[in-house]
Amino acid sequence: MPGLTAYAGFFEVCSPKKGERVFISAASGAVGQLVGQFAKSIGCYVVGSAGSKDKVNMLKTKFGFDEAFNYKEEHDLAAALKRYFPEGIDIYFENVGGAMLEAVLLNMRYHGRIAVCGMISEYNQEEPAGVRNLLNIMSKRIRMEGFVIFDYWHLYPQFLERTTKGIKEGKIVYIEDITEGLENAPSAFIKLFTGENVGKVVVEVARE
Amino acid sequence: MPGLTAYAGFFEVCSPKKGERVFISAASGAVGQLVGQFAKSIGCYVVGSAGSKDKVNMLKTKFGFDEAFNYKEEHDLAAALKRYFPEGIDIYFENVGGAMLEAVLLNMRYHGRIAVCGMISEYNQEEPAGVRNLLNIMSKRIRMEGFVIFDYWHLYPQFLERTTKGIKEGKIVYIEDITEGLENAPSAFIKLFTGENVGKVVVEVARE
Repeated sequence: MPGLTAYAGFFEVCSPKKGERVFISAASGAVGQLVGQFAKSIGCYVVGSAGSKDKVNMLKTKFGFDEAFNYKEEHDLAAALKRYFPEGIDIYFENVGGAMLEAVLLNMRYHGRIAVCGMISEYNQEEPAGVRNLLNIMSKRIRMEGFVIFDYWHLYPQFLERTTKGIKEGKIVYIEDITEGLENAPSAFIKLFTGENVGKVVVEVARE
Repeated sequence: MPGLTAYAGFFEVCSPKKGERVFISAASGAVGQLVGQFAKSIGCYVVGSAGSKDKVNMLKTKFGFDEAFNYKEEHDLAAALKRYFPEGIDIYFENVGGAMLEAVLLNMRYHGRIAVCGMISEYNQEEPAGVRNLLNIMSKRIRMEGFVIFDYWHLYPQFLERTTKGIKEGKIVYIEDITEGLENAPSAFIKLFTGENVGKVVVEVARE
């Protein structure tokens, strides 16, 4: 499911073109790591953010991102994005929301596209702070679009073909975060919110 | 220009279909009044908001909106929208931003579309309050898109044909808010922000 989410979200929702500048938040997650590789495969410039030094290294060395940064070490997210995108962002693959989205909007290029896959920073907020600069959507003619995988099952065959080929050729890699034992499922789930996971969180019930 | 803005924003950005439920904020403005009439012309259900009793009456009697309400008289905008759209909004033509957008997001239907034409409530805010429920964009698969007229000049001939025909047949009407004398231009401009204008604000420099 994360695979098809990445595929549909990037190729269908983002309308990507070769050479465009792509930013992915929560990029070491199950979806983000694959979006970055899809984007690289068509010749985009790709930057991801993640929440630890190890994840940042992994994005650059294992997944082939052009750049990556640890958002926890940045006091000014908008300035960080400006550093990696001096000419602005064409495509933002949104997994985070809130302050990150605000910083991105400041750095988007005209006719930019934002695919809203998730907004994990907002899920448990009783009173979210709010995004204060939506005016950028108008002035920069940005398209922002939410999507869920249920609308894209028909793309499964072409997703599978592209991804299987990539994996066989060693051009697509992935990492799963495996927790053993059903009794540990709750703590595995919580990883998604503390940012401890790297890649898809899998609970292994029994090894066959 | 307001005419082509209404035309392109509605027909191109909103992807409207017959029978869909359309909400327009600042609906008595130069753009809003025409969007509503375009929406009615293809069989949509159309509701507009405005800031005075007179404007609300005008939307219903002169421009043929199905319903209209005075947003200044509503303590709970989300509840007001729920009243007029018990099944939700398919298309929102956005001229206001802020609290109105928040209320709309709560009432949007799945696969809804928001054309961002303006956000007049936000233009002079030093610290806008922010829109806190953007998560709806993801969960409801909403497309939100900013646009400006400069990208749509090529539609001018078809806009002109459709609108001229409509005006000749009496199916499209419009109101201009004319201020006489160039020396009164500043106060005419300020009308846009105080909400005093009805329709396009025109400064008449000299009557030929």
